[in-house]
Amino acid sequence: MTRKIRLGAFLPGGGQHVAAWRHPDSPADGATSFAFHVQLAQEAERGLFDAYFLADGLAVSFGGGMEGGNAKVAGFEPVTLFAALAPLTRHIGFIATASTTYEEPYNLARKFASLDLISDGRAGWNVVTTATEAAAQNFNLDRQHPHAVRYARAAEHVEVVRKLWDSFEDDAFLRDKETGRFFHEGKLHLTDHHGAHFKVKGPLNVSRSPQGHPVIVQAGQSEDGRALAAATAEVIFTAHQRLETAQEFYRDIKARARGLGRDPAHVLIMPGVSPFVGRTLDEAREKYDRLTGLILPEDGISLLNGLTGGTLDLRGHDLDGPLPPAPPTEGMKSRQALIRQIADENNFTIRQLYQWVASARGHFTLVGTAESIADTLQEWFESEAADGFNILPPWLPTGLTDFVDLVIPELQRRGLFRTAYEGRTLRENLGLPFPANRHAQARAAARAAE
Amino acid sequence: MTRKIRLGAFLPGGGQHVAAWRHPDSPADGATSFAFHVQLAQEAERGLFDAYFLADGLAVSFGGGMEGGNAKVAGFEPVTLFAALAPLTRHIGFIATASTTYEEPYNLARKFASLDLISDGRAGWNVVTTATEAAAQNFNLDRQHPHAVRYARAAEHVEVVRKLWDSFEDDAFLRDKETGRFFHEGKLHLTDHHGAHFKVKGPLNVSRSPQGHPVIVQAGQSEDGRALAAATAEVIFTAHQRLETAQEFYRDIKARARGLGRDPAHVLIMPGVSPFVGRTLDEAREKYDRLTGLILPEDGISLLNGLTGGTLDLRGHDLDGPLPPAPPTEGMKSRQALIRQIADENNFTIRQLYQWVASARGHFTLVGTAESIADTLQEWFESEAADGFNILPPWLPTGLTDFVDLVIPELQRRGLFRTAYEGRTLRENLGLPFPANRHAQARAAARAAE
Repeated sequence: MTRKIRLGAFLPGGGQHVAAWRHPDSPADGATSFAFHVQLAQEAERGLFDAYFLADGLAVSFGGGMEGGNAKVAGFEPVTLFAALAPLTRHIGFIATASTTYEEPYNLARKFASLDLISDGRAGWNVVTTATEAAAQNFNLDRQHPHAVRYARAAEHVEVVRKLWDSFEDDAFLRDKETGRFFHEGKLHLTDHHGAHFKVKGPLNVSRSPQGHPVIVQAGQSEDGRALAAATAEVIFTAHQRLETAQEFYRDIKARARGLGRDPAHVLIMPGVSPFVGRTLDEAREKYDRLTGLILPEDGISLLNGLTGGTLDLRGHDLDGPLPPAPPTEGMKSRQALIRQIADENNFTIRQLYQWVASARGHFTLVGTAESIADTLQEWFESEAADGFNILPPWLPTGLTDFVDLVIPELQRRGLFRTAYEGRTLRENLGLPFPANRHAQARAAARAAE
Repeated sequence: MTRKIRLGAFLPGGGQHVAAWRHPDSPADGATSFAFHVQLAQEAERGLFDAYFLADGLAVSFGGGMEGGNAKVAGFEPVTLFAALAPLTRHIGFIATASTTYEEPYNLARKFASLDLISDGRAGWNVVTTATEAAAQNFNLDRQHPHAVRYARAAEHVEVVRKLWDSFEDDAFLRDKETGRFFHEGKLHLTDHHGAHFKVKGPLNVSRSPQGHPVIVQAGQSEDGRALAAATAEVIFTAHQRLETAQEFYRDIKARARGLGRDPAHVLIMPGVSPFVGRTLDEAREKYDRLTGLILPEDGISLLNGLTGGTLDLRGHDLDGPLPPAPPTEGMKSRQALIRQIADENNFTIRQLYQWVASARGHFTLVGTAESIADTLQEWFESEAADGFNILPPWLPTGLTDFVDLVIPELQRRGLFRTAYEGRTLRENLGLPFPANRHAQARAAARAAE
């Protein structure tokens, strides 16, 4: 089978760009409109996207979070939203972000297994440690845990969740009305996890779901983040501005995965891309300028502060001057470094910086025609920088519709993208293997050794 | 407006009765079939029920929980399930159980507010403290917290969740594309809760939902449970076998609510009723005997153990002998007392006891025609024992269909039940007031005092 580009669609109802909600095409209440999210899911499915992806934060987003221009101040809890979208779609996967720092493994395992059952195998979990002080203060803490502690807890959390998802073997249920035997007692297993951060007896009270395990997704770029991703993730969302850094990341993760005994083909790397698509280059540039022109300066400043975990307060600074130096932080290490790198490499003023990151928040912005955008995606895909892309339309719904109507057909013409969904589950569409149940595996191994 | 009976429908896909899944009419995989839950929700909506209600436990249920006849060993997480059912229904409310002991207020407030947005105002939260050792052991504990600690935490938890639901005032959102003002900064409020159990800064990152607050439901019957219910609940599910105890409970709760300055009409008391409905009394009895005959002895014993929080292990005892004495427990105090009361009052053997509670688990079992069942419901409704009922069909879907086709029309003929949904939200259908936002109220009070 030829290798195909995988595509995720990042579709917060309020749009990705900080000024998206002000765009004439966008519904101003998109962020909290369920009907609009239905429209987006169905549009992404029309485009044959592998998955609908939603980020998440456990606090009002942005710097202080109380700025009146912040359209991301309120939204839906992702798993609840995706459960509601599942019966209104048939093929597209749903990758919801959930926190290892502020959710218990048992609750998290349950809701994702439930989503996987409801969607008939289309659930994915984007594992995050939730790196803001604002979130910590919503969960009984004064300050968040150090970066290393969050990541150690995350690794153990994922392990516990996976164990819980193996509580029932695939053939555990008998449901024999005649004898009254509902399940095979030997095929339901205690979890019995005792670790540094969690003690969970189990078993999970949800049956093993159609995918065995919902797809595990990760997005960390720090050293800790890369280690966790290489060890556990099946899809990695990443942010790169240049082919070279994307290639470095790609090679590094694949090598780490191989070193851990994993098949590198089962770790899909998908950089984020924010596309402004025009029928001509001029039309694409007009779309970019139109949206950029809608950013209020105070929202631009809040955006930079929010993107760095509330550690970059630029109020009072000259917008047409350079970015001031900042102390190190326990917050979003990798994201702050990336923002500074963008400023340095482009010699951006504060204003230019927020205008540039406003569309993609550190991801790769492409302004062009279907052909030129497909050229770039193809180059990254064919030169070991990407297995696919996470598409972040700057505003909705037209930013998505442009991509579906213009770029998808171009990718299909080049044989780089599917023309119909291949499988039933998200895992099947992504070409990822079904995870064998650890208890069934252990028994088979014991039998073979006899 | 004439007072009407309120009806909840308790519809776990596997059926309420311990042997429900073995009934020829029931799908053996109902507990984990999403399609079957869709059918049940739509059938309950056809019956004009106020709400679909689901209990919840954070562990595999029953005694040890590993018995092969336990059809309740696996199900869905209720909020995730209800979110998926919401777009496939239009009127019926969804009351999901969630735990104050094992969920954080911020996460819980978010998912219920999201469900309320998705369902356009049809969400309710059944507040529970989760009284099993098995659940505690899934959440880093060796033993559960004492009863009083759980209830103190529960009271504070509900308070925090309600504060979070008031983060945005009802008219906080401006969404003015022209000026770029998305919301009114003075109408988004920090939560700033500092209590014995929780410290939560807020605000919530979900907009105020259509009902202001999802409807608060409670089911505790112990002293702590009654105090919490009278202080916070708008609907109270309760279990009674006799009119007199139901009346005592009704009067007690209404008096407590009045004493706390609440309008007793806004605290709806709904005892559970498990109906076997026949066109004749003989037909109803046949239905009862048929289901009772499907209980395996080991499942009956597990049921009693599960109902008492794992504190009543009757393995090895003579099934045709009496219930042995048991030590006090920190678990489900009120439920164990109720089970013992049923045994004592009826002089039941262990076998007779599990056969009786198998259908209703301590709730009131009615075996009769539509007329006789309507007579009883009317008597309870008109003699201060109930404002409505939580209907627990013993098996599904026919136990529900019988009630919808036979009992509902009889209640309608008597003018006791609606013939169409009155309102848009669950709150409106139940006749409960819209909760004013505390910050708007405080400002209005301050203005009036000037």
